[in-house]
Order: sequence, then C-alpha cells, then structure tokens
Amino acid sequence: MAGGYQYKVLRVDLTNRTFTEEPLDEKVIHDYIGGRGFGIKYLYDDLNPGTDPLGEDNELIFTAGPLAGTNAQSFSRYKVFFKSPLTGGYFKSSSGGHFGAELKFAGLDIIIIKGISEKPVFLYINDGKYELRDAAYLWGLDCDDTHALIRQELGNPNVKIACIGPAGERGVKYAGIFSERRAAGRGGGGAVMGAKNLKAIVLRGSKKVEVADKTAYTAAVREQIAGYQANPQFASFSKVGTWMAEATNALGIFPTKNFREGSIPNWEKLESSEYLKLLVRKTQCYSCMVHCGSIARVYHGQYAGAWTEGPEYETIWAFSGPMRNADIGLTIAADKLCDDLGLDTISTGSTIGFAYECYEKGLITKKDTGGLELVYGNSDSVLELIRQIAFREGFGDLLAEGSREAGRRIGKGAEHIGIQVKGLELPAYDPRGVKSHGLNLLTANIGADHNTGYAPQEVFGVPIPRAVDRLSPKEKGELTKWNQDSTAFLETGILCSFMPSMGMVPEDVYGRLISSATGIKDFEDPAYLWKIGEKITNFERMFNAREGFGRKDDSFPKRIREEPLPEGPSSGTVFEEEEMLDDYYAVRGWDKKTGIPTQQKLKELDLEFTIQ
Amino acid sequence: MAGGYQYKVLRVDLTNRTFTEEPLDEKVIHDYIGGRGFGIKYLYDDLNPGTDPLGEDNELIFTAGPLAGTNAQSFSRYKVFFKSPLTGGYFKSSSGGHFGAELKFAGLDIIIIKGISEKPVFLYINDGKYELRDAAYLWGLDCDDTHALIRQELGNPNVKIACIGPAGERGVKYAGIFSERRAAGRGGGGAVMGAKNLKAIVLRGSKKVEVADKTAYTAAVREQIAGYQANPQFASFSKVGTWMAEATNALGIFPTKNFREGSIPNWEKLESSEYLKLLVRKTQCYSCMVHCGSIARVYHGQYAGAWTEGPEYETIWAFSGPMRNADIGLTIAADKLCDDLGLDTISTGSTIGFAYECYEKGLITKKDTGGLELVYGNSDSVLELIRQIAFREGFGDLLAEGSREAGRRIGKGAEHIGIQVKGLELPAYDPRGVKSHGLNLLTANIGADHNTGYAPQEVFGVPIPRAVDRLSPKEKGELTKWNQDSTAFLETGILCSFMPSMGMVPEDVYGRLISSATGIKDFEDPAYLWKIGEKITNFERMFNAREGFGRKDDSFPKRIREEPLPEGPSSGTVFEEEEMLDDYYAVRGWDKKTGIPTQQKLKELDLEFTIQ
Repeated sequence: MAGGYQYKVLRVDLTNRTFTEEPLDEKVIHDYIGGRGFGIKYLYDDLNPGTDPLGEDNELIFTAGPLAGTNAQSFSRYKVFFKSPLTGGYFKSSSGGHFGAELKFAGLDIIIIKGISEKPVFLYINDGKYELRDAAYLWGLDCDDTHALIRQELGNPNVKIACIGPAGERGVKYAGIFSERRAAGRGGGGAVMGAKNLKAIVLRGSKKVEVADKTAYTAAVREQIAGYQANPQFASFSKVGTWMAEATNALGIFPTKNFREGSIPNWEKLESSEYLKLLVRKTQCYSCMVHCGSIARVYHGQYAGAWTEGPEYETIWAFSGPMRNADIGLTIAADKLCDDLGLDTISTGSTIGFAYECYEKGLITKKDTGGLELVYGNSDSVLELIRQIAFREGFGDLLAEGSREAGRRIGKGAEHIGIQVKGLELPAYDPRGVKSHGLNLLTANIGADHNTGYAPQEVFGVPIPRAVDRLSPKEKGELTKWNQDSTAFLETGILCSFMPSMGMVPEDVYGRLISSATGIKDFEDPAYLWKIGEKITNFERMFNAREGFGRKDDSFPKRIREEPLPEGPSSGTVFEEEEMLDDYYAVRGWDKKTGIPTQQKLKELDLEFTIQ
Repeated sequence: MAGGYQYKVLRVDLTNRTFTEEPLDEKVIHDYIGGRGFGIKYLYDDLNPGTDPLGEDNELIFTAGPLAGTNAQSFSRYKVFFKSPLTGGYFKSSSGGHFGAELKFAGLDIIIIKGISEKPVFLYINDGKYELRDAAYLWGLDCDDTHALIRQELGNPNVKIACIGPAGERGVKYAGIFSERRAAGRGGGGAVMGAKNLKAIVLRGSKKVEVADKTAYTAAVREQIAGYQANPQFASFSKVGTWMAEATNALGIFPTKNFREGSIPNWEKLESSEYLKLLVRKTQCYSCMVHCGSIARVYHGQYAGAWTEGPEYETIWAFSGPMRNADIGLTIAADKLCDDLGLDTISTGSTIGFAYECYEKGLITKKDTGGLELVYGNSDSVLELIRQIAFREGFGDLLAEGSREAGRRIGKGAEHIGIQVKGLELPAYDPRGVKSHGLNLLTANIGADHNTGYAPQEVFGVPIPRAVDRLSPKEKGELTKWNQDSTAFLETGILCSFMPSMGMVPEDVYGRLISSATGIKDFEDPAYLWKIGEKITNFERMFNAREGFGRKDDSFPKRIREEPLPEGPSSGTVFEEEEMLDDYYAVRGWDKKTGIPTQQKLKELDLEFTIQ
C-alpha cells in the first residue's frame, strides 16, 4: 500500500501457545478497508461452517481502525468478531474507551485468537512481545478486580485491558468483553473468551501511529473538528449523551412490559434532566471531543450509593421497560452490576423481562425462580437475578441461555415470549413505531442490533437522505439498505456509530480521513465506500447462509407481527414483516424466497467465491 | 536544625477552608524526633481536655517519618493521631503502603486537620498546592471505588489516597482509614474523618527527600540492608509475613470463643502452609525489601472467588477465633469486605465474637439480630453482620459502637463480655499466656494494642534483652517498659513495628539512620533515644490523665483476671492484674494508686508542663 502505514496481524493459538505475526495483503486492505471489512474477511476465511461457537475452532478477531490512536475524532473504538453462541451466526461487537488506540500503540491492527488454553491465561502484548500469563488467580473475579490485579501484577496502572467477568467464564450466552467499564457487550463474545480459558487481553504500547499523507490527514482532521463544532447536535450530545428516554417514550416506542406497551408510566423519572442531577462527570473515549460518556450515581432511596459509568440509553431501558418500573436508581445499580459481572445489559434486561411475562402467565412460578417474585411495577428481584444469571445459579442458569433458548426449554408457548431476532434480544425501540429501524433489526446479520443500520430519520427526524413516515411500511427497504451500507463502510474505519447518526461526519470527510491515513486514494471516493459497505453486508449474509440462515431467520416474534400497541403515538399498527422483507430483498438484490443474495449480486460485489 | 532537611507542617481548617503552612521548631524536632513524638506533642498542645472526638475541635494529625520516601528500609509508613471515639483517649494508628512516602514527596511532614467541612470534601495536596474538592459524589462509596473515581477525576492513576468507607461516614466507632487496601485501622480514625465530612486525603508530589548527611546516611542504609540479609527471620518473614496462627495456637494463646479457649479446633486449616496455597503474590510497602504483604484468594468452597490484600495474622484470628470456626475462606472474604467498607478487622471480629457470646447466653436473640444465627462453629452470618455494622443497619447499629458500649446498652451482664481495654478490643493474643504482652495490652495508652509494646520475647522466644517465662507474672513490668519505650522511639522514625520485633534493626543502626537524615547528632545516642521513648509514653499517659484516665482504666475484663483457660499450654493461670500493675507502675515511676506519672518522673522527662 502507498504511504508509511504498515498493517500487522497477530495470530494467537491458545491450544499450542504460539504467536504468529503476519502482514496484511495490500489487496485485502484495498478491498475491505479495515475494521468490519477485515472482520468478515478473516472470520469467513478461517471458520468452517458448523464451527462450535464455544469450541476450539471459533475465533475472536480484535481489530482497531486505521485512525485509532491518532487525533482524528471518534475513531479509536475497537471491534471484535466471532461466531456467536447466542445466535449461531456471524457477530460483530464493539467498544469505546482506550483499548482500540492502545492496540495500535502496541503495533497491531488485528489480533486473531483461536484454540483453547489448557488453563486460564491472559494474553499480554507489550510492544511487540507476546506472552500468555497464568490467570488462575483471576478466574472468578469480576471485571473491576481483574483490571486492578492485572495492573498490580504488571506494576503498571496504564496498561489497557479487555477482560471477562464470571458471566463469560460460565458461558452465559450474552456475556460481554469489558475494558475499563466499557463493553463490547452483545452476542456473547465474553462466553467465547471464557470457553477459550482466556480471562483478558492486556496491551501496552509506545508506538506512534503513522499516517500515509500527513498534510491531507491534518487538513481532514481540522475539517472534521470544525464539522463537529458547527453541528447543532454536538453541544447537546456532549451534555446528555444517550440519555434520551423522553424522546422514545414520546414517540411511543419505549418497549414496556415485554413490548406490550410503548411507553412506561412515570417516564419523566427517566428523563435526561433526572440523570443530569446524578451526573458526576463526563467521560470520553480516546481522542473524542464529544465526551458523551458519564459517571452517574444515586444519592437517595433503595439504591443510594450505587454508581456506574453510564448508563447508556439502552441500559436505562433494559432495567425499566421490561419490568414496567421507572426506577432511575435500579438502572444505575444494574448497569454497574452487569459491568462488574460481565453481562450485556440489553440481553440481560430483556431476558429478565421475558421471565416477568412467563411469570405473569403462570408458565413459571416462585418454585422455578427460587422464591423471587417477578411482578410488573416491582423490580426488587432484578439485582439478584442478574447475579444468578452471571453465576448460573438457580433460576439464572436458565436465563443465561437467552430468551429464545429459555423459551424453548420452558415450552407451553414461552417460545413466543422472548422478543428477539436470530436469538439476539431487541434493543429499546419498538419496531412497530419506527419501521425502517425495525426492518434493520429484522435483517441485521447479527440479529436485532440497532447499530447495524440505525434509522435517525425515524428516531430523531433527521431528514438525511430524506424525511420519512416512521409508521409506514412503504419504501423502507431502500432506506434500511442506505442506513446499513453506510454504517458498514463507516465501521471499516471504526468510526463511532453515534457520529453518522447525528450527521456529524459527512462521507466525504470520512473518505479523506481514511484515505490520508492509509494512502489508498480509492477510499476518498464515496461511490467506492458505498460499494464496500454493501459488499460487507452481503459478505456477512453469506457467512450466515453458509450456516443455514435465510429468510426464515429474518423474523420477529408473533407479538411484533400481529399485535398492535394498545395506545400512544405508535399504536394501532403492527410490523408488516412480509411486505417489508419483500421490498428490502428486492432493493438488496437478494432472492425473495431464501433471503440470500443472488449470484448476480455476489458477482457484482466481487463475492462470487461465496457462492455455494 | 543542621543539614538540609526542612520540616514542613500543613494546617487545614475544614470549617473555614483555610490552609496554613508552618515550619517546625528546631527544639521540637530535637525533643521529639518525629512521628509519634510529633503526634503527642501537637495533639496535647492543640486539644483541650474534654474535646468531643467527633466534634470540630478534634484533630487528625498525619505524619511521615524523616526517612519516609528514602531508600532506607521499612521507614515509609505513616501515622495518624487523634482523640479516639472508641476509647475517649489519645490514639495513634498506623499504615504501610505508599501514602507516607508520597507525603514527603509532596513536601510535607505533618498535616493537621481540624474543623468540620460544611459538605463532603476531599483534601487534594499537589506539590505545594492545597485544595478542598467536592466529595458529595464519593460519599457512600466503598474505599476501592473511592480510589478509582478520585484517580479518574484527577486523570492520574498514581495519586496516593487515604480515605474512609461507609463505616467512617456513619461514625462506626472502629472505622479505619484506608490507602490502597492498607489500613490505619484501629481506634476509629475513620469515624473522626467521617465526622469532619472528609472523605479522603489525596497526595501527589515530585520532591526528592533530602537527607542532612548523605555519606553517613548511605553507610547506615547499607548497614541496615546487610542486617536484614543476615537475619534468619528475613527469609521466613518475606515468605509468610504474619501468617503465624500455628505459632499462637501451639502456645494456647489463640483466643477462641471470646477468650474462653486458647486454641481453635482444626487450626491446621489456618496454618501458613494453607495460606501459601492461596498466595497470588507478595506485596510490599514503599522501600521495603521484606515484602511481607500478600494477595491471597480463595479457589474452592463457600467463599470461592474471594480475594484480599492480606489477611494479616490479626485478621485471620478476628474471623475465626471469635466464632470458633476455622474457615480460611471467610478470613479472606471478611478481610476484603472490611477493607472495602472501611472497618478495623480486629474490633469488627471481636465485637462480632462478643455478640456470639451474648447470643449463646440468651442476652440477645434472633429478634435482636434480625434473624441472624450466631452459633459457634458456624460463621455464615459474619459477612452480613460486617455489612450491617458498616452501614449501621439493623443489629449492626449496636455493634458499630464497639463491644464495651454495646455491652453497656445490652446490660444484664453483657458489660463484662466484650474483651477490651479502654474500649479497644484485644488483638489475637490471650494475655494469660503471654504476660508481658498482656501487661502491654493492659497499659498501652491507646487501649489493648499489640503494637505499642509487642513482646517477641514471649510470643517468639526472642531472648532480647533476656529470655522470660511467658506464664509468670514476675518481673514483667521492666520488660514491658523496655518493649514499650523502644517501640516509642522506633516509632518516632516510624520504622515498621515488625522490624524491631524480629531484631532486624538494632538501635544503633536506627540511631545512625535518623541522625544522618535529620542532622541531629543526639539521635545517634541510644541513651537519648531511650529517654525520648520513655518521654513519649509518659506524655501520652498525661494526655489521658487530663481526660480522667488512670489506674481504673488499666484493667482487663473479669474473664482475663479471674477465669483460667481450661486447657492447653496456657491453661491454669489467670492474669494477675493487680500484682503486675503494681510492679509496672513502680518500674515506670508512676503513682501506684492513680497510675499516673509522679511529678518527679515528669520533671525528669522534661514534661513538667503536663503537671495538673
């Protein structure tokens, strides 16, 4: 590749305790750019179909983008790819913080981990030196203590750590990977790490990240920063981050009582103004002037003294809506507990919400829950349930499987109660009230993920590329494709998802940033970026197709398809799944019957090698 | 004073939010050396008799010794002085770690804190800049989280912090002060801090600690290090630290069942060899090659996953002997919980042991304990009791007062059940089996403190200054004076108490070290050091005399005085309190009737100004 930037891949085989450095082929960089592009490329190439997500052959692929560790803004997240134990398919998960930048400082772009270590270990990457160190003494510890004791062992409070908690060790299907209280939470990456006996990855690096064209890069960063400052969203997002429960409640899309209602009683208790009263300080990821993060704590009531980094909007919902109880204290206490024990908050809250409905319907009783009462309006059992899930104790052992599998095991109709797609629990948006957003949740290759193709057009009324009627099923295929493909190419550089949602990084600026960093001119061309975005989405779908996924897996539970919300501004309409899927597949050039890209589409995207 | 070293005192008035620097008078340095000498000097001068320990006028005096922050070994502890809410008298408490050295790096020898802040604050001392910062957001947090969030606020993981937990905030009478999981635990300094609304003291310094005579200093440090290496205790203490429960059980002085037995069934479960199986790594204080500290964790059983820095011998005892249950897991879990919540482990364990006996005797029932069962051989309720004590919830609110006051409130004979002197609970040595050690516990001015005049002659058979019969009451006054006065002068330099106990720092080496550091030649003279040691002990006693203390307060509970241990190598003898006190007072030159120094003695020690 042109310019000074050298990509380096580290392969770690835990079974054989080997480390192999390899360069990255220039054509791969050109064809996939980075981040999410590399993730699907390596995962597809390395894994055979049918790979056991918790077996030796599954991989964890950590990547940082080409601008991580530079002073480009909001580019220092990392992504991790694996076959998910929750969905059985391709998965991408992502986290902010400082781990992504440190990966680059340590001289690496990609770490590919496979195999299973005989004993618990942590991987220590120290400026080109690689080591597997004993982690028996860390096994069983929560994420916070794991960070503390590793730092002490290494005599260095500045190492960057991504680790699992007790939930990951015990194979909880939605255990995440945690770095300084930020999580690559979704999809069970923590369970994959746990199955590998890998407690943590620890980084220390001192290299400066080089860019290919310094002059162009400097100009592009200036342009990006000016764009942030000029954007009216910047100030408000810097102030309140994702504290936006009032917005979704007002739209009637705040899923309540396991998606049976669209807003929660007393939602003013969850308004951003309430969280601002509990704000300790703002926090930020490496090189991001937005500092959307927060430390918040509870001063009064049942959860007085609880604090957390967060909670994000999704977490606020996860511990209020599912229990139909707007208790700001619980959202903070539960967030912290999930972070400590290593659980994805969305799936945890939603799976508990699934249990609430099963309990209400008598499908489970106090006998099953070990005496815990799961009654709407009362969330006193939630912290204990979180603990039981993480440790797979008592009733938690069942919930640790996720709502889809737990529903199957309970039976008697419980199969239909978990609100998930492909096994991944829905986030805090009711698809019936934001239909393009819903169509994305329905079709995203990792399952019901809001960040694969967020629809700011519907949630925030952003009129780019056009204004839409959020309740109409019409012409949403094209918009969803637009959101998904743009997200895909923006995730090759691993730009924070929030920025495009708010129109803060136009595609041309993005193109100039990654082009100047990598020295590859094509990246400046929006048409090229869009093609790569589409290619990635299709490639990921072909990974899943190889595993047997198809149209049957692009499906919401009956409730979303057949039961309208009873009241509020999103009431009276169901999610018109068949109609919208037909439209979407047509726009995508996918076969309507199978939900799989046509051969023609695959050839057009240089993906003919995936044709089965 | 001669040489380059400049002492600096910082006075902080929390009520008026003022900071005043003052130099230290050369005569004060000459007459008191430092550390414990300064502590009593300032506390006596500044406080009026009758000062409310939790009121505005009580002070917290933090001191580092003249060699803290240098490469002299085991000299970087700090001491804190205050009037104790637990005893109502003079108190000194002490901790290792890195806080003492940092105090010197920040340019200070003494911090004197008085007043009460209107709102919760922490004191931030940054290389000569002083600041009170808002701590409302930290109030209610445990010690670990307090450390983490302060470091985050200051953007510096290297600041050194001494803080209180929930126990200190709530005025638990034996709440301690915690710095990186090391504690100045005893006597309720944490409650004093809490009453002042002072959550933490945070230090950052970059100054190099200067010594007056570099050549002499370097030679003395070399001599000290050679002495360590030549000492047979060095290797074993480095290996097992204070894990010595087998030694005291073998002597029959491991207080069991609230001092009704002298060894615990199955004590092999608490042997050092068992702890070594749980050792994660050794830890050390600043500039101490002994690294007697440990991280230990539990791998199996009820407390699997628990870990701590420690536990020290006293803590091992505090959560086994009082409950008559040798559970190594509990000792570790309880130690960590006390560190997190900010409690002294000795008083916590002993006060819980007091409750066990009250429960056995029917003086309290399940109704009082909120359903908790306190039955010997079963310690399942202990962690919950610790939590309740720290938060003053339920039954814990009573126990938070300490065993003496709790006994008074329960009445019906419970007044005699708490095993304490002057309100301070006894540590892990039965006085009936180590009588000079016991005489020290009886007469130490802060109450039953083992570190005021530890008797290695009895506990370890160290024949310095002479071999003794540990069970005999004869001639123990002189030995106790010897142990107390030597400890007193060694604590002017704030040498770690363990070192003299093991004969690792002879007095002449100690003298050369502090003389070379301060430039004061007199400190080289052992006779001078002994005089200062005696002076400090007497001065402290006069502080207490001014508060109304006297012979009546040098008294063990009836059990120690009247009931012999039923079996084992320390059975058959009681503590001959009257006889031993008479002997001790005579040796001390104190009035037999009052237990207070004679005027002649005070004049001899240049303490005539304390004559009332």
